[in-house]
Amino acid sequence: MHPNLIDSLVIQNKTKIVFLVMDGLGGIPVPGKLGTELETAQTPHLDEIARQSVCGLLDPVGPGITPGSGPAHFALFGYDPIKNNVGRGILEAAGIDFPMTERDLLIRINVATIDKSGIVTDRRAGRIDNETNKRICEKLQKNIRLESGVEVFFKPVREHRALLVLRGDHLHEEIEETDPQQTGLTPLPPTAIIPEARATSDLLVELIRKTKDILSDEKKANMILLRGYARHRRFPGLKERFKLNALAIAGYPMYKGIARLLGMEIAEQTETIKDEISALQKNFLKYDFFFVHIKPTDSRGEDGDFDAKVKVIEDVDALVPMITNLGPDVLVVTGDHSTPSALASHSWHPVPVMLSSKTCRPDRVERFGERDCISGGLGRMPMVYLMGLALAHARRLEKFGA
Amino acid sequence: MHPNLIDSLVIQNKTKIVFLVMDGLGGIPVPGKLGTELETAQTPHLDEIARQSVCGLLDPVGPGITPGSGPAHFALFGYDPIKNNVGRGILEAAGIDFPMTERDLLIRINVATIDKSGIVTDRRAGRIDNETNKRICEKLQKNIRLESGVEVFFKPVREHRALLVLRGDHLHEEIEETDPQQTGLTPLPPTAIIPEARATSDLLVELIRKTKDILSDEKKANMILLRGYARHRRFPGLKERFKLNALAIAGYPMYKGIARLLGMEIAEQTETIKDEISALQKNFLKYDFFFVHIKPTDSRGEDGDFDAKVKVIEDVDALVPMITNLGPDVLVVTGDHSTPSALASHSWHPVPVMLSSKTCRPDRVERFGERDCISGGLGRMPMVYLMGLALAHARRLEKFGA
Repeated sequence: MHPNLIDSLVIQNKTKIVFLVMDGLGGIPVPGKLGTELETAQTPHLDEIARQSVCGLLDPVGPGITPGSGPAHFALFGYDPIKNNVGRGILEAAGIDFPMTERDLLIRINVATIDKSGIVTDRRAGRIDNETNKRICEKLQKNIRLESGVEVFFKPVREHRALLVLRGDHLHEEIEETDPQQTGLTPLPPTAIIPEARATSDLLVELIRKTKDILSDEKKANMILLRGYARHRRFPGLKERFKLNALAIAGYPMYKGIARLLGMEIAEQTETIKDEISALQKNFLKYDFFFVHIKPTDSRGEDGDFDAKVKVIEDVDALVPMITNLGPDVLVVTGDHSTPSALASHSWHPVPVMLSSKTCRPDRVERFGERDCISGGLGRMPMVYLMGLALAHARRLEKFGA
Repeated sequence: MHPNLIDSLVIQNKTKIVFLVMDGLGGIPVPGKLGTELETAQTPHLDEIARQSVCGLLDPVGPGITPGSGPAHFALFGYDPIKNNVGRGILEAAGIDFPMTERDLLIRINVATIDKSGIVTDRRAGRIDNETNKRICEKLQKNIRLESGVEVFFKPVREHRALLVLRGDHLHEEIEETDPQQTGLTPLPPTAIIPEARATSDLLVELIRKTKDILSDEKKANMILLRGYARHRRFPGLKERFKLNALAIAGYPMYKGIARLLGMEIAEQTETIKDEISALQKNFLKYDFFFVHIKPTDSRGEDGDFDAKVKVIEDVDALVPMITNLGPDVLVVTGDHSTPSALASHSWHPVPVMLSSKTCRPDRVERFGERDCISGGLGRMPMVYLMGLALAHARRLEKFGA
């Protein structure tokens, strides 16, 4: 079934849908533990939901495919993750709320360090602080001009990461990245991959040369590396596709960026998981759809810290009654992808999910865990279908066909 | 997900993948037995692997579709079995290592017997032996010339089966087969199905007339029946698609043919299953991917002999430690399709599979059998995704998207 079939069936009502998304939730078992991180965690509240839910295992992109955060979240929200695969430049730009236009080429950059012979000695300029990053971007913004008149914007993101935007006509994204991926080498040239991209490539050569001059008096932050290009794309949002007034509650720029790209409003900045749930409570009457993004499950998985990931899951579990007490019509608990601490990275393993609502047909799953969800009523399915299921249980989809 | 998405994510490393493929493995239960052939067999070694694996049921082509060996094996190796459906002529040609060119039309033929009035009395010429087949093919090769100058090749395959190749320009495969499918009838004319195929059809009428003349002094092998046409097609191989140096260990021409079409090297000829596993051991350091094809499970299924199929599975089980002792990074045990002895033919039933590796998330399956695999972590999925999963567990796939 094409994931966009649901669009034509959508109706509006007053029901409320909550997606509680623990980033990188899925894991694999580790010797000496009770199973995966989720299986090892004590999760009485999540388990109670499981008993009233229909459960399953979701493939964010497909069997064997390890998704980046972009494709994984697009799939979560019902967008084909392959057709809508966008470059990190767009996600970063959306994350810092850069006002994109259709003429923009969005480029993710690292501020880096080179030595006198031009060799990269630190690809992250010693992870400069946000303040330094801001100062460097302002310095570049103030001093750089391209001969063609194409506009240039430098915007700090976090630490050594920044956004570079070229605004002009006929810009192309088919350009090689300049990050050599290791120190001891010079930056690579921004070579055009297709002939049509040559003019853009020439602009970037000019820009990099001028950047190097402007930053030549800096000790650490004296170069930039271009790491991912994306032409602007517009996406039909959740309002347009599903008639949902959606709120994203997320702490990290990229997830806010994805949410904004898909037409969600963004909740005020929060620091802790509890703050996020409080923001959900506070805004519960004002929206139809809530994306609550929990980052630390993924971060601790990426750290390779099994016990710390277990702890985050248990922390979330303790806050779950704050959500269930709101009485959402549909509550979905899942991850965007797996981040097993044993692998310390995103992985291809399918993600446990449970969907609770008055209209669901609970299966025999008694506990929220990967091996339990296997025998759940959703079986194993592509994640892109989850949004349609949530809309159906929220009574927001009409019958298909006569 | 399109099965070719994985191609763009492939990286190379030193991991080793073994596919142990028991042809026609899947079965259906029979009254008075413990279940299917696989469920009835005593398989302590396979069961031990099952406990460390992620299991499931695979559909070679799709629910309800009984696959031929071609589509089933294409799906096993990650090739869309519908888009890559090739005529048996190509598979036979590859199986005998006929050096195909892009101008070839490959035709599978039977040597047959006709009476004086031209009526087919034996569609297999009494299953002539390989020597006679060879003599007949050489006789035809030596004496036949087509007026157009299109080249003709006759190559014996086995018993009454042979390969006929036309080599020329603008040859077409859209031609009716000439085998009347029963004795007591004359061969059918090789009628063109589309207008563009008329010239090819005329060539075949000429060829059949001359063949009949040349063989008129033969008692049994005095006619040929044309049973399947295929224009040559080139396939990107496992090296090209997946950066795998692949070895096929298979006793039968057609499976070697499929493997060769997909760019695998072919191990020395082996006679027994044990010889095949020995060939795996001997070559284990030299390749990345091993296709070990076990034919007798299918043959005994086709015979309708339940107990003999059980015995083959038990024989394979006894040899499994020779494989696991090699320590492959990924071990997949499955079949290409089902051949229930109760049906004495290929069938549409999904095929049990287990995938074992350090990175897998074992489910609760304790035994390798059809009804156990239903509750496995792979669920029920198209077989074409198996190769991507194997590559993922072999850490040979990069992340998709930012």
